[in-house]
Amino acid sequence: MARAATDDVSIAALRQPTAGAASTVYPFLGVDWGGEVFLGAAVPFGVVKLGPDVESFDGQPVGSGYASTGLVDGFSHLHLSGGSGKYGNILIAPVTGRLDPGDIKSARSGEDASVGYYRTRLTRYDTLAELTATRRVGFHRYTFPSNPDSHITVDVAHLLSRGNTAESQQFLGGKVTVLSDHEVTGVGRYRGGWNEGGEYRVYFYLIADTAAQHTQTWAGPTVSSSKSSSTDSDTPLGASLDYATTAGQVVQLKVGISFISEDQARRNVKTEAPGWSFDTVRNAAVDAWNQSLSHIRISGATDSQRRQFFTAMYHTMLVPSDRTGENPLWKSSEPYYDDYYAIWDTFRTESPLLTLIAPDRERDIIRSLIDIYRHEGYMPDARSGNTSGRTQGGSNADVMVADAYVKGITGIDYESAFKAMQKDAEVPPPDPHMEGRGGLLDYNSKGYVTTADERSGSRTVEYAYDDFAIAELACGLGHDDAARRYAVRAGNWANLWDSSLSNDGVSGFIRPRNPDGSWAPADLTVRGTWPNFEYEGDIWTYSLYAPQDVRRLMEMSGGKKNFIRRLDTLFYHRHFDMSNEPGFLLPMLYLWAGRPDRVADLITLGLEREFLDSRGGLPEGNDDSGAMSSWLIFQSLGIYPNAGQDVYLIGTPSFPEAEIDMPSGKVFRILARNLDREHANRYVQSATLDGKPLDTAWFRHSQIANGGTLELTMGPVPSDWGTRLPPPSLSDPVSPLCAAATASH
Amino acid sequence: MARAATDDVSIAALRQPTAGAASTVYPFLGVDWGGEVFLGAAVPFGVVKLGPDVESFDGQPVGSGYASTGLVDGFSHLHLSGGSGKYGNILIAPVTGRLDPGDIKSARSGEDASVGYYRTRLTRYDTLAELTATRRVGFHRYTFPSNPDSHITVDVAHLLSRGNTAESQQFLGGKVTVLSDHEVTGVGRYRGGWNEGGEYRVYFYLIADTAAQHTQTWAGPTVSSSKSSSTDSDTPLGASLDYATTAGQVVQLKVGISFISEDQARRNVKTEAPGWSFDTVRNAAVDAWNQSLSHIRISGATDSQRRQFFTAMYHTMLVPSDRTGENPLWKSSEPYYDDYYAIWDTFRTESPLLTLIAPDRERDIIRSLIDIYRHEGYMPDARSGNTSGRTQGGSNADVMVADAYVKGITGIDYESAFKAMQKDAEVPPPDPHMEGRGGLLDYNSKGYVTTADERSGSRTVEYAYDDFAIAELACGLGHDDAARRYAVRAGNWANLWDSSLSNDGVSGFIRPRNPDGSWAPADLTVRGTWPNFEYEGDIWTYSLYAPQDVRRLMEMSGGKKNFIRRLDTLFYHRHFDMSNEPGFLLPMLYLWAGRPDRVADLITLGLEREFLDSRGGLPEGNDDSGAMSSWLIFQSLGIYPNAGQDVYLIGTPSFPEAEIDMPSGKVFRILARNLDREHANRYVQSATLDGKPLDTAWFRHSQIANGGTLELTMGPVPSDWGTRLPPPSLSDPVSPLCAAATASH
Repeated sequence: MARAATDDVSIAALRQPTAGAASTVYPFLGVDWGGEVFLGAAVPFGVVKLGPDVESFDGQPVGSGYASTGLVDGFSHLHLSGGSGKYGNILIAPVTGRLDPGDIKSARSGEDASVGYYRTRLTRYDTLAELTATRRVGFHRYTFPSNPDSHITVDVAHLLSRGNTAESQQFLGGKVTVLSDHEVTGVGRYRGGWNEGGEYRVYFYLIADTAAQHTQTWAGPTVSSSKSSSTDSDTPLGASLDYATTAGQVVQLKVGISFISEDQARRNVKTEAPGWSFDTVRNAAVDAWNQSLSHIRISGATDSQRRQFFTAMYHTMLVPSDRTGENPLWKSSEPYYDDYYAIWDTFRTESPLLTLIAPDRERDIIRSLIDIYRHEGYMPDARSGNTSGRTQGGSNADVMVADAYVKGITGIDYESAFKAMQKDAEVPPPDPHMEGRGGLLDYNSKGYVTTADERSGSRTVEYAYDDFAIAELACGLGHDDAARRYAVRAGNWANLWDSSLSNDGVSGFIRPRNPDGSWAPADLTVRGTWPNFEYEGDIWTYSLYAPQDVRRLMEMSGGKKNFIRRLDTLFYHRHFDMSNEPGFLLPMLYLWAGRPDRVADLITLGLEREFLDSRGGLPEGNDDSGAMSSWLIFQSLGIYPNAGQDVYLIGTPSFPEAEIDMPSGKVFRILARNLDREHANRYVQSATLDGKPLDTAWFRHSQIANGGTLELTMGPVPSDWGTRLPPPSLSDPVSPLCAAATASH
Repeated sequence: MARAATDDVSIAALRQPTAGAASTVYPFLGVDWGGEVFLGAAVPFGVVKLGPDVESFDGQPVGSGYASTGLVDGFSHLHLSGGSGKYGNILIAPVTGRLDPGDIKSARSGEDASVGYYRTRLTRYDTLAELTATRRVGFHRYTFPSNPDSHITVDVAHLLSRGNTAESQQFLGGKVTVLSDHEVTGVGRYRGGWNEGGEYRVYFYLIADTAAQHTQTWAGPTVSSSKSSSTDSDTPLGASLDYATTAGQVVQLKVGISFISEDQARRNVKTEAPGWSFDTVRNAAVDAWNQSLSHIRISGATDSQRRQFFTAMYHTMLVPSDRTGENPLWKSSEPYYDDYYAIWDTFRTESPLLTLIAPDRERDIIRSLIDIYRHEGYMPDARSGNTSGRTQGGSNADVMVADAYVKGITGIDYESAFKAMQKDAEVPPPDPHMEGRGGLLDYNSKGYVTTADERSGSRTVEYAYDDFAIAELACGLGHDDAARRYAVRAGNWANLWDSSLSNDGVSGFIRPRNPDGSWAPADLTVRGTWPNFEYEGDIWTYSLYAPQDVRRLMEMSGGKKNFIRRLDTLFYHRHFDMSNEPGFLLPMLYLWAGRPDRVADLITLGLEREFLDSRGGLPEGNDDSGAMSSWLIFQSLGIYPNAGQDVYLIGTPSFPEAEIDMPSGKVFRILARNLDREHANRYVQSATLDGKPLDTAWFRHSQIANGGTLELTMGPVPSDWGTRLPPPSLSDPVSPLCAAATASH
């Protein structure tokens, strides 16, 4: 039996990790009002994300697991972050008094969390619950009251978002076995969820530090003293270790999770958490986070800005899950990651962030994508529970690869990646709902997806950008024919452009085309979703989606002046939607029109109005695996990636000084002289890079790869800095395509 | 010549008013991203609101005067707050170097503001500008550099939102006269603006503490040495006092403003600001604000909450403008207020706030409305520049009167008020665009406004509520026939209810009716404006606008369960719009369905996501003369008025303790035990009022009129408190109408 821990001791422990960036993370930021971030204990990219699952007061489970209000069902081991409708498996709950597995939920009090740690008191049971974790092990500490009838229960049937629709999850059955008076093992089989995934199995091995007086199991409504129970259908399934507890008695658990076997779950406990010191495990988690968060340092920020910034970084490292060694589908020495949710969300800002500050991690993630291609035929667009799906737009893993390539990440088999990208571009998938490109035959023969397929607008413009990414890699690898072919296809977005289509004083929008090539009616008012012409954005947003060729976009919009007016109208009439990704780049488009001042205005607005430091601090919608959070990180730093290209666009920094560790071991420093947000000194007056004047509002990754200093001098009035040479475009007189791709390798 | 003031001295001075609530006001809160609050120096309800007028970097004037970015044209004396498109008159600017009245704008630095004080450095002129004010006098302090060619200019032609449309302002002409080497007087004539107002004249008398070496005037493009210039058309008009300044030389000005005459402008200076001590004037302004802000005290709030709360109070006391003694239209001993902008915006929360904490002020405001009725025929719905207009919805001054009456405000000639209200209800106005009720003949004969008139939906439901207000006052005054008649008309909102109209799973909406009584097509998607069926709200919002009879609304929506589902759908699909007033009461409607928990959730969401403590801290839209700000004040206190009724609805307090000074001299105290916002203890578990159990989520004004203590015990889980007896409705078995009205007098 472990020594009793009082609440006071735990509170002292809670405040322990005061050093390092981890101490500034506020895990509650973004849990409410749609942010849907994970709350609980996890290490960076951990398999186990151990946290409370809550149901609302009228009995509706919260799809992402956590909410600030509602009753706690218990603490489950697998979660997404910034999304909902998957996991919630292997739920542990302490109970006092008569055990009814169908009625365990409790109110809570004294809830708190810090990086790698969660605690709450379950008021119904007067029991304190504390959680921490390693990569594959959940570590639980329960402090009980005096009660002759206390229990630690494990619920194998539990899931978030249960139901019988394709998007809900189903429990298919499983088994639970009491191995000894302090060990339980088992497996659950599950299916469904947002990605409409196939069956996956979660094995667990639970070991307590305290022998139980009795044990029980159940499969169905009735609890029995049997040592083992199993079911092949959606019935309750679980087990209980029963104790007569004294006041303040602590019972600790370690729960190993595996996707391979019960034995591996047990091994995971032995290798990752051999001892019984909660604080050792917790401190290791904090250390891991401090290490992961150490690669950017900011100074001169307010407390609120620091909190937002490092919590955002934390959000970007909760998913994908590093399931290396836990792939049940094939044997491979390659890394294995799951929970891309979805690459469509994260390729724009989160991948470029990891490329910048954690290139080894990004390398492993991309290697896992390539390994999935090798064994399943396609790189995923989304994936969870070992099943790829569902595709939201293009095959944007292509852009991830290109982004890594043009920024010089090594250790990736780019020839295999190139094959995977060509497969995306050339071979229609068996089920375009789950992988590859839907409408590909039309796209490849006509140059656009037609109304015969859903999301024909957003898919067309994304495919064109994906083709640009392929062309870049082809250039770099010396596949010149392919480079030329895909560079031409990179202009396909313009095939949907109807210059006669007008709305709100602006002419020229993308428009649906019928299979015979004729125009179909356009809906100028909808913000699309499945199966509309556009997905999670409106026609204003998608008509300006050509990150590879904004110059041409501007020409087609009637030149610089009309383009500025178009952007002004777009923002004024709120077509820009910070809560969904398709518009992420829109504020930066002013740079191509020589208006860095408008960029500064809009970034300031976005950071001020959309991002807060509180529980509802993320744009309504959800964090989408850290996509929103990484937008904040880049825009706060004052640089923003054009994902897939070796270019950073300069906005307006939020901090006087920031340092970024570059893979070279050198430091890239961003200084903002005279920065004074309160006084609106948001406009860059002049800039130097490594002491040399920089007159453009952009620079290349290669210019900072070996460290350096970007020094921006800020002022309250726009200047002519950055107004002359716009960022690169495919249709520039000298095409930037191969120069960038070859320079980096 | 005054003694030179260095910047350092001024900064010290800036920090002087550290005591009192005024020191927590952050005048920049809400200036950006549409909040449009006034920034500059003013006393509570002052005539003079002296602040910078800014134009954007591409030359567009900011309609409300101020923005954080842009160039400063100078400092003008009249402004609205939380609205735009009116005033900007009598603009003072310091200039160094050659004077070109057509090109004076300058960048700025070191800008700051506190209550009653504004400062900025005009970088083009290296001149520090500081401003403070009395009710009718702007006090300027300019600290010049060494320059043989310095000027203080007055621009009489300046206006915000100039142009030739009905909603823009026009300069009609005026006159400027140099009286001596340190005095200038003059008048400007203006017209137009958002309220499409008629001509108004602004007289000024400027006196400097330092004799000028030269003076100049202009009427047209050319500056002359003439002592007087005038124009009868829209040409430049102004004057300059010219100085050879030494480094750090201070020149101070007092500019008296009057709507009566130049002589009165001069007298206003003499009586309100006889001396030359800037700090004396400034300290008096701070004292006045501290006095006005002292009637609510909060404790246990965070710094950010305090800043938001007292800045919100400050916003509610910038307008209307107390123009008593400055009415050019008729002689009267009654108070005279202008800048109702608009009562449609402010009757819901701002009037009930003044009724609660500043009943003498509210009394005077209402007396001014009655006096306008006496002399012009109707109480205004909006008014600015001495012209009533434009009407936005109903004749909601009726609700203001009823609110004051049922809450026991004395000193108002309620019989005259009743006549004014009956006039609203019975006599079609000559121009319903400007006053009274449009579509009144239809409304009075058919029971609803028809499609023959614009805004027939929002007008109908508002007229019905206005009629309820009339019925209340009729009850109280013993006009029983009228009380019965208007009580019947108070049900007219239901005449537009089409129970077959469905949207998004909800049935029963108001719907346009043709003049023949048949249904016209409904547009279920639009958020209306002129001339749509509804104004600044959608059909979901206006279908639930019956504050007098939510019980019946619930019945017509299919009973309690359907009503809850309807509200859930409304909020989930974002029909609730915090940036416009028609939906202000919507979160509270759950109380009638016994769901105070949902109220607590929605208030928490609204306060957390919509209101910040920063420059863009108000809901997008604008502050509408403090309407949004007063919503925040009530909801933070945990009580919310149903305007026009003697009822406060209990929500969820933001502070552990708040005290409100009641007119009786007693204190009303709100205590929230166990409040812990971070831990979501937002649900009332039990309540007492003056030590007696209070089981309803509402109480009457009469219960707190003599002070008392409302003690709420908060918890993390909804309770059954407040779920039984809903707030009053007209269709309650015992009609609450006359009981309330008569109890208060």
